Amino acid sequence: MAKKNIAIVGATGYTGSELVRVLINHPGVNIAAITSESRKGEKFSDVHPQFQGLFEPELVGIDDISEMDLDLVFLALPHGVSMDFVKANHDKAFKIVDLSGDFRLSNKEVYEAWYKKEHNFEAGFEQAVFGAPELFRERIKDARLVANPGCFPTSSILALAPLLKEGLIDKSRIVIDSKTGVTGAGIKAKPNTHYPMVNDNFTAYGIKSHRHTIEIQEIISKYANDEVTVLFTPHLLPVDRGILSTCYSTPVKSVSTEELEKVFEEYYANEPFVRLRNSLPSLKQVRGTNYCDIYVTYDGRTNSIITIGVIDNLMKGAAGQAVQNMNLMLGLNETDGLSIAPIQP
Amino acid sequence: MAKKNIAIVGATGYTGSELVRVLINHPGVNIAAITSESRKGEKFSDVHPQFQGLFEPELVGIDDISEMDLDLVFLALPHGVSMDFVKANHDKAFKIVDLSGDFRLSNKEVYEAWYKKEHNFEAGFEQAVFGAPELFRERIKDARLVANPGCFPTSSILALAPLLKEGLIDKSRIVIDSKTGVTGAGIKAKPNTHYPMVNDNFTAYGIKSHRHTIEIQEIISKYANDEVTVLFTPHLLPVDRGILSTCYSTPVKSVSTEELEKVFEEYYANEPFVRLRNSLPSLKQVRGTNYCDIYVTYDGRTNSIITIGVIDNLMKGAAGQAVQNMNLMLGLNETDGLSIAPIQP
Amino acid sequence: MAKKNIAIVGATGYTGSELVRVLINHPGVNIAAITSESRKGEKFSDVHPQFQGLFEPELVGIDDISEMDLDLVFLALPHGVSMDFVKANHDKAFKIVDLSGDFRLSNKEVYEAWYKKEHNFEAGFEQAVFGAPELFRERIKDARLVANPGCFPTSSILALAPLLKEGLIDKSRIVIDSKTGVTGAGIKAKPNTHYPMVNDNFTAYGIKSHRHTIEIQEIISKYANDEVTVLFTPHLLPVDRGILSTCYSTPVKSVSTEELEKVFEEYYANEPFVRLRNSLPSLKQVRGTNYCDIYVTYDGRTNSIITIGVIDNLMKGAAGQAVQNMNLMLGLNETDGLSIAPIQP
Amino acid sequence: MAKKNIAIVGATGYTGSELVRVLINHPGVNIAAITSESRKGEKFSDVHPQFQGLFEPELVGIDDISEMDLDLVFLALPHGVSMDFVKANHDKAFKIVDLSGDFRLSNKEVYEAWYKKEHNFEAGFEQAVFGAPELFRERIKDARLVANPGCFPTSSILALAPLLKEGLIDKSRIVIDSKTGVTGAGIKAKPNTHYPMVNDNFTAYGIKSHRHTIEIQEIISKYANDEVTVLFTPHLLPVDRGILSTCYSTPVKSVSTEELEKVFEEYYANEPFVRLRNSLPSLKQVRGTNYCDIYVTYDGRTNSIITIGVIDNLMKGAAGQAVQNMNLMLGLNETDGLSIAPIQP
Repeated sequence: MAKKNIAIVGATGYTGSELVRVLINHPGVNIAAITSESRKGEKFSDVHPQFQGLFEPELVGIDDISEMDLDLVFLALPHGVSMDFVKANHDKAFKIVDLSGDFRLSNKEVYEAWYKKEHNFEAGFEQAVFGAPELFRERIKDARLVANPGCFPTSSILALAPLLKEGLIDKSRIVIDSKTGVTGAGIKAKPNTHYPMVNDNFTAYGIKSHRHTIEIQEIISKYANDEVTVLFTPHLLPVDRGILSTCYSTPVKSVSTEELEKVFEEYYANEPFVRLRNSLPSLKQVRGTNYCDIYVTYDGRTNSIITIGVIDNLMKGAAGQAVQNMNLMLGLNETDGLSIAPIQP
Repeated sequence: MAKKNIAIVGATGYTGSELVRVLINHPGVNIAAITSESRKGEKFSDVHPQFQGLFEPELVGIDDISEMDLDLVFLALPHGVSMDFVKANHDKAFKIVDLSGDFRLSNKEVYEAWYKKEHNFEAGFEQAVFGAPELFRERIKDARLVANPGCFPTSSILALAPLLKEGLIDKSRIVIDSKTGVTGAGIKAKPNTHYPMVNDNFTAYGIKSHRHTIEIQEIISKYANDEVTVLFTPHLLPVDRGILSTCYSTPVKSVSTEELEKVFEEYYANEPFVRLRNSLPSLKQVRGTNYCDIYVTYDGRTNSIITIGVIDNLMKGAAGQAVQNMNLMLGLNETDGLSIAPIQP
Repeated sequence: MAKKNIAIVGATGYTGSELVRVLINHPGVNIAAITSESRKGEKFSDVHPQFQGLFEPELVGIDDISEMDLDLVFLALPHGVSMDFVKANHDKAFKIVDLSGDFRLSNKEVYEAWYKKEHNFEAGFEQAVFGAPELFRERIKDARLVANPGCFPTSSILALAPLLKEGLIDKSRIVIDSKTGVTGAGIKAKPNTHYPMVNDNFTAYGIKSHRHTIEIQEIISKYANDEVTVLFTPHLLPVDRGILSTCYSTPVKSVSTEELEKVFEEYYANEPFVRLRNSLPSLKQVRGTNYCDIYVTYDGRTNSIITIGVIDNLMKGAAGQAVQNMNLMLGLNETDGLSIAPIQP
Repeated sequence: MAKKNIAIVGATGYTGSELVRVLINHPGVNIAAITSESRKGEKFSDVHPQFQGLFEPELVGIDDISEMDLDLVFLALPHGVSMDFVKANHDKAFKIVDLSGDFRLSNKEVYEAWYKKEHNFEAGFEQAVFGAPELFRERIKDARLVANPGCFPTSSILALAPLLKEGLIDKSRIVIDSKTGVTGAGIKAKPNTHYPMVNDNFTAYGIKSHRHTIEIQEIISKYANDEVTVLFTPHLLPVDRGILSTCYSTPVKSVSTEELEKVFEEYYANEPFVRLRNSLPSLKQVRGTNYCDIYVTYDGRTNSIITIGVIDNLMKGAAGQAVQNMNLMLGLNETDGLSIAPIQP
């Protein structure tokens, strides 16, 4: 079978380099172009020297790809920038996986309230399918535009979906206490990502106002067909990669740990990238991979359900899930290119 | 004024060395002896080489201190071992600050249920005062035996006490999501503290069963004069020192962030070691010190109160608070020896 | 072509798990067995939970493999243990790649002097080929027993070989200042690998006496056909993986940086796993891969040559190079299974 | 005795905050002013929140201090900026300790060659005393301007001075392989100090051209009364604080480790901040303190002397040594304010 041609728009960030890391070993696709406005004309390996000898194409401009015969384009752009590309290209022949937050929410109003930024392509909200294969696989297969989920939402939604599907928990308040590695903040050096600020340190941030709050809440509400209220608090870990979300909910009927485990096992029985763990999962057990590891337990003493979701934020939380979505959209095997063993340690 | 004579029982662990770090600059006390059964006869600086040239006494046996004229003894021993010393010495002239968990709980039955270990000195539970100066200062001044609080409880209790005192929150379930540095696990190398297991990693542990759960719950129930239910989940951070506890509770009356801040300000107005922060606190802002930094906010969207307590687990969570208790018990200035600026970075 | 059958003897350490990480995606081999004496009967994924869902065979005993039809066996055993297996199996049909230090040196006397341990299979020194493909590729292809190089030696030898080959440097003293990640010390928790001992810390160790000193010295002397004296100092970095060796030598003729770069370029022109860098290399640029990145420069002010070699100690310094050797020994493509992009960050 | 009044010019960097950390517990001085041009009018604790409740003066402008009655001024400014202050204030009543590199070298020409920057106050080179108390104590006592040594030079010079003093080593090439923590690069976030660039990583930098090369070489040449050639290579460690310098030299006469240890013991017999170690020193054994820990050994096999010097770059490498110099310049006890125990872990 001829390889599919894809392009990556946005070469300089972590999602760009992570897409390349995955795709250069993908059996079914060819990276036809990779763009950067700021470093056009340089080699990809000048921007990411670890790729010397491995992947060294010249970076092109975003305009250069319009004439190419592409099957799919990944947008590894900041939010607020992706929407311009989508607006200009939504009727092109190629499909789009947008890794930014521009089309994850339900509509323009919600977007503007949480992103404090004007949205210029309202129609995109209708067209976009939220790229969580475990929840919306069939719709993704037919989508022309997939909004690749945020990193925190991926870890949280997968840890909660079976509980909501089965109507097991109180929807009036779910507490999600999340901890993320620094790559979630992007490749650009900022005071709060300066090494001596992060190393041997830990803090909460974005309390009450982080944009992923509304993303989680909208998606699980939609999935539960009911209004769910989510309290989400992110924290910054002194690690490169990985998100661990500890989710606290209250059962609305009698449950046991064994029953919960059974619910999760059945729900995820055919999912290639969700692993139920019987011991407490950790970041390194999924590092570099597209896995989401999940742990569930019931605490009778406090009548609470605790679920933990763990992902690599650059993989299942970004590039890995984007490739999984691409595989679905292009009719490839869902796991192609993603059979990667965790790098531990 | 003549210096008080103190002894430290248990030289080889982190609490032992941290007590020395603080006390060698304390104006009012003299370290008369420091003991170790396993390394008796060696110098303290052989065990902790960072003290070369600073503090090099010979380690003595625990029996050697019985004949000394001591004002106070710190027990830097594992739980299950402290009780033997207290049993044998509770009627001696010296006072005792026990840094282990042996006398923090209400009684023998609770201890044995959570510590899975027999307790051999039931009378100690009655005699011991829980060494949280912000809650029990007057009782500590008169105590002969102080049970120095656990590290997680200190960060949690101080973040919750004002809310309970004022009857502001629902006591039926408080969620405490805590994150600790590795020194909390002690100085002994174990598989789960092997560098490649912890570095760039993160995990929950002791879920539903950590002993500090009952310590927190009993103390705040006692303080609130009512039954409080606590759900406590500890996590292991790749950092040396520090605990950050994120506490989620539900108000029982209408509140605002401003009102909460005022409650906390008044409550801690005269406390030398509690700092209310108006930005999100971090581990390094208290590193090496006896401070507990606290942040409080109300989330109207979810009708929740979020309070964050941050300490250095070896200081306010162990040795620092022990010295603060010693100062109270010996009639010294409460802040003596503890005017230390945070080491950041 | 039918897949080759290989076995891994020694499942519990880092080299065992790293061999599996590489080999489960290798197109030409099948892992027929993996052994552990201490955890026989358990699943491989019980020992290394990151492999859950990926690789879960039952661990067998070392005796179980004697009846198997194997093409090659990897020995991921401690030194002093490998020799027993080699002694017992050197005339079997399968080839052996020994990842320990048991057959890297020239003879029994040297081994016993540096390893402080008796050697029980003297004939092995003659049979073993030192598994550095860049130096001894043809001999490796024909070898029945390959002594896989040590991690420090790999980074140092590759940084020095072109200089020695061309007779460019003074052989009376080469200074190698090396820095390694903690995985080099193995998977077993020890006081010096306890997280709080390593984190935010740095120290030299094994000064003047590290066994890799003699390994480097013997191999480069043999390669230079002359006696070379090596001063080697290892240091312990607070990182998981990676070795960076800074090598200082003195030219014996007039050189320039440009000339040196040309020498290295020609020398390594056809090497798939050596990359010459024109900027200073770093650990993460090779992390998870079989690359050795090299930098060379001449300092006219001090008349010195500085060469830097960087590898992932678990890959080019252990499992990766072992697979490269296996590929040569079994007539497979040398790069099979090793086309892995660096994980950065 | 009345306290001395000092000012700190430059509040926003690490040396500024570290000077405050030390000086707020100094018995003999009062911080009369602390300046910042960029954040004038804000509180010091707004810039460095860890000082909330401890030290909260308003930051003033550099011009505001000209009218104050000051005994000494610390310049915690970047190089190239300090010279302006010194030029304008060298005839004022107060003494100056300059923590920048502006007056450490021998003259304007050397400065401009290595710093690639014009120097505007040539007379300062004559006036300035290099602030290494162990080498130039008496001159420092009388100095009006002290050039506080660089961090790498402090660790290196102290590791080499006794060898040079006794004429024990070949001066034609000394190799210094140094490793530093990230705070050495300052408080400003840059791409090469972005957390994911440093964490779990390691690299050399400034090879052949780092400015501290000439600083080390000039000072030890002056001290040895002979030309010494220094090859210096810095590396960036993933740690906050600390420098470890491994120095390689060749003896010019027969020596043994015992003889070397005796030379160092005698040389440093009365030095309060130099500790000779009989085991390999590490960064954390000096963290937060003004100590320089030194290890010396002779390697007979290669006829080499290896000396290791370890400091906290922000203390003995900057603020601590600056306070030590201040104590000497103001006639205070040399150790005042510096009796700090290492924070380990």
